[in-house]
Amino acid sequence: MKDYYIKNVTQDLDGKEVTLAGWVHNIRDLGGKKFLLLRDKTGIGQIVVDKSSPSFQEISDISQESVIMVKGVVKADNRAPNGVEVHAKEVKILSKAKSPLPLDVSGKVKADIDTRLKERVLDLRRQEMQSILKIQNITLKSFRETLYKEGFVEVFTPKIIASATEGGAQLFSVIYFGETAFLAQSPQLYKELLAGVVEKVFEIAPAWRAEDSDTPYHLAEFISMDVEMAFGNYEDAMKLLEKLIYNIVNSVKNEASDELKILSHNLPDVKIPIKRLTYKDAIEILQSKGYNIKFGDDIGTPESRVLYNELKEDLYFITDWPTLSRPFYTKSKDTDPNVSESFDLIYRWLEIASGSTRNHKREVLEDSLRKRGLKPENFEFFLRWFDYGMPPHTGFGMGFARLLVMLTGIHNVKEIVPFPRDKKRLVP
Amino acid sequence: MKDYYIKNVTQDLDGKEVTLAGWVHNIRDLGGKKFLLLRDKTGIGQIVVDKSSPSFQEISDISQESVIMVKGVVKADNRAPNGVEVHAKEVKILSKAKSPLPLDVSGKVKADIDTRLKERVLDLRRQEMQSILKIQNITLKSFRETLYKEGFVEVFTPKIIASATEGGAQLFSVIYFGETAFLAQSPQLYKELLAGVVEKVFEIAPAWRAEDSDTPYHLAEFISMDVEMAFGNYEDAMKLLEKLIYNIVNSVKNEASDELKILSHNLPDVKIPIKRLTYKDAIEILQSKGYNIKFGDDIGTPESRVLYNELKEDLYFITDWPTLSRPFYTKSKDTDPNVSESFDLIYRWLEIASGSTRNHKREVLEDSLRKRGLKPENFEFFLRWFDYGMPPHTGFGMGFARLLVMLTGIHNVKEIVPFPRDKKRLVP
Repeated sequence: MKDYYIKNVTQDLDGKEVTLAGWVHNIRDLGGKKFLLLRDKTGIGQIVVDKSSPSFQEISDISQESVIMVKGVVKADNRAPNGVEVHAKEVKILSKAKSPLPLDVSGKVKADIDTRLKERVLDLRRQEMQSILKIQNITLKSFRETLYKEGFVEVFTPKIIASATEGGAQLFSVIYFGETAFLAQSPQLYKELLAGVVEKVFEIAPAWRAEDSDTPYHLAEFISMDVEMAFGNYEDAMKLLEKLIYNIVNSVKNEASDELKILSHNLPDVKIPIKRLTYKDAIEILQSKGYNIKFGDDIGTPESRVLYNELKEDLYFITDWPTLSRPFYTKSKDTDPNVSESFDLIYRWLEIASGSTRNHKREVLEDSLRKRGLKPENFEFFLRWFDYGMPPHTGFGMGFARLLVMLTGIHNVKEIVPFPRDKKRLVP
Repeated sequence: MKDYYIKNVTQDLDGKEVTLAGWVHNIRDLGGKKFLLLRDKTGIGQIVVDKSSPSFQEISDISQESVIMVKGVVKADNRAPNGVEVHAKEVKILSKAKSPLPLDVSGKVKADIDTRLKERVLDLRRQEMQSILKIQNITLKSFRETLYKEGFVEVFTPKIIASATEGGAQLFSVIYFGETAFLAQSPQLYKELLAGVVEKVFEIAPAWRAEDSDTPYHLAEFISMDVEMAFGNYEDAMKLLEKLIYNIVNSVKNEASDELKILSHNLPDVKIPIKRLTYKDAIEILQSKGYNIKFGDDIGTPESRVLYNELKEDLYFITDWPTLSRPFYTKSKDTDPNVSESFDLIYRWLEIASGSTRNHKREVLEDSLRKRGLKPENFEFFLRWFDYGMPPHTGFGMGFARLLVMLTGIHNVKEIVPFPRDKKRLVP
């Protein structure tokens, strides 16, 4: 149908006939000539339609976002974008767009976030959003390539589950053949079991939390990047996570420089090892800044902002959290049962990943459940496998949209996710 | 923790000290010596523990599937598996397994499928299942690499949706903040909209159908491999699918020869172009074989078996299905409105993928909905975008587990999927 993408039409093709197709991004009418800016997935290029061309009539009332196919001859012209324009011999309208558009795709008129999400398909065509989609793709590719090299196997775990696995966050119910089941809030327990089969696994898949709160960093449905590995502890997990972040940031830097420019975003410098701060030290810093905070309290976004201002590090780990502030599968330190082998990775003030050494002994897991007011018998579907050779293991989960906050500079996951789901939004 | 995987312990390491960790696959007791078969994600190797070793006592009552760490010296020995054994200096039990096991992991005792799914974590440790997981991983990698090369972008579409999109198959309901919503049966409509943004998209993600039937090829939750592209028709989609299948089969052939041996499976030869048979010709073949079948009837598994016996082709497309037997978004042929630009890809008698040219004109979509007894006003959330420049587009969906039937020779998707979901199964 088309034989070239816009970015591949360069001065080398001067004089050659090409067929392009895409969206009418903008129209300039100079009476005897029309200049169309044509957009496809690779960029924007200039089409010239002369009055003498038989297509001039065809496009007399062409509207923005209409889809067209253009056959024409490439002319090198240093005044044009990309140094070339295409002189149309034939223009075919494949789909005519209604006018006016409910949202300006060319980006001159700014819209508020509610309008943008309502008119999302048009909003996604804006260059900023296409840049985010491209960065997202590079991120996924780099994440998987690093893990493949380390011998990890990609898995898919079940999303409809029989019981409220981690006992904590709010779950969505599903009517499952007449019974009530739930949507998984994370692949945690299944990925642990699979680490007990093939040692090193990862999964990139949706997870759900019935979050009541309307914050820029929460969604009811989100993509979770999960990693779990046998025969390692949280130090190994942090080292792997560092490598992943390093490779991702560098891939985006190398492969998406144009997109970063469109987003006016500077990526953080990733220095390995990434700064590590114990939870205890973090609390002391906060106390020294006058915060009324004590061991066991959460370190939320406001507190993390203080730490960021103090540390002046874009990325840092907070390690060794209080045992009881973490889920039951988190291993405590052999030297101090109140402190756990756990970490959060923070980008400035935003938690983007969370991990730990896991408990791999049944009696420790049972004890840990009881200490959290949970009943081991409700977790038998999980615990029973620890009777049959579960290795020591470790892992982490990372929020994909939160990682993209760091990679795009857009501080709202609802802007990043193509079709976000929250308390108010199920459409589009 | 460990510094070698079993398959990397070769005769070159003769005399060197290594640390291995894994599961006790089998134990042979020769009085003065114990031979342990140790299994990790790479394979099985032999450990020798001599009576004189201080670890001999430690492992006196070691059980199968216990997890151990072994420090020892490599000895080349052509009688041993892989030509080496490791003479243990130190054995540490990391997790002792209960005995007897509810399922034999070493594969000598066969279990029925219900037992296997109940004892699934042990079942997954069997070499056949680990081979399937490895082939699954190679398949995903090859699928994505081919699509990246073709300029596709990986996307994630929402899984909780407001309305019953395709009007057809049974949906699971979700209680969404007090309202009823549904689990997506496919990413169809969203992937079409995204093809209207970045032209070429793919997604590998769960989808759900409340299938009542208990067949070897259906699950309530399944992984769908979806592809959609602008500016192309079903011929382009078939060509891309051929390339994907060709690359996947060859990757598995090259990278999983040991695993194919374990599964005693021969991969099909993929000849490009893959045989194409129109629906009309398929009906005529079936009629000539005495089947009471007419234009408009479905071609199910029994009929496909007849076609396979006739065609003697492992893979074939059935194209040009009756328009009304396909979903509303399927484009009919310009030359005959009763026939559509559609295809199924069949492995012997199993449909593994299904695709078509899509309708991209609003008035055609509305008409198509009405012809199927559906109300266009219920699809406004989808249709409205066709007012704003939807390009011609095409695509297909492929069932990941069904593709793996072809790649593993296991003719039951419940055996292939690690934790399958059907009417009877929500645990483990």
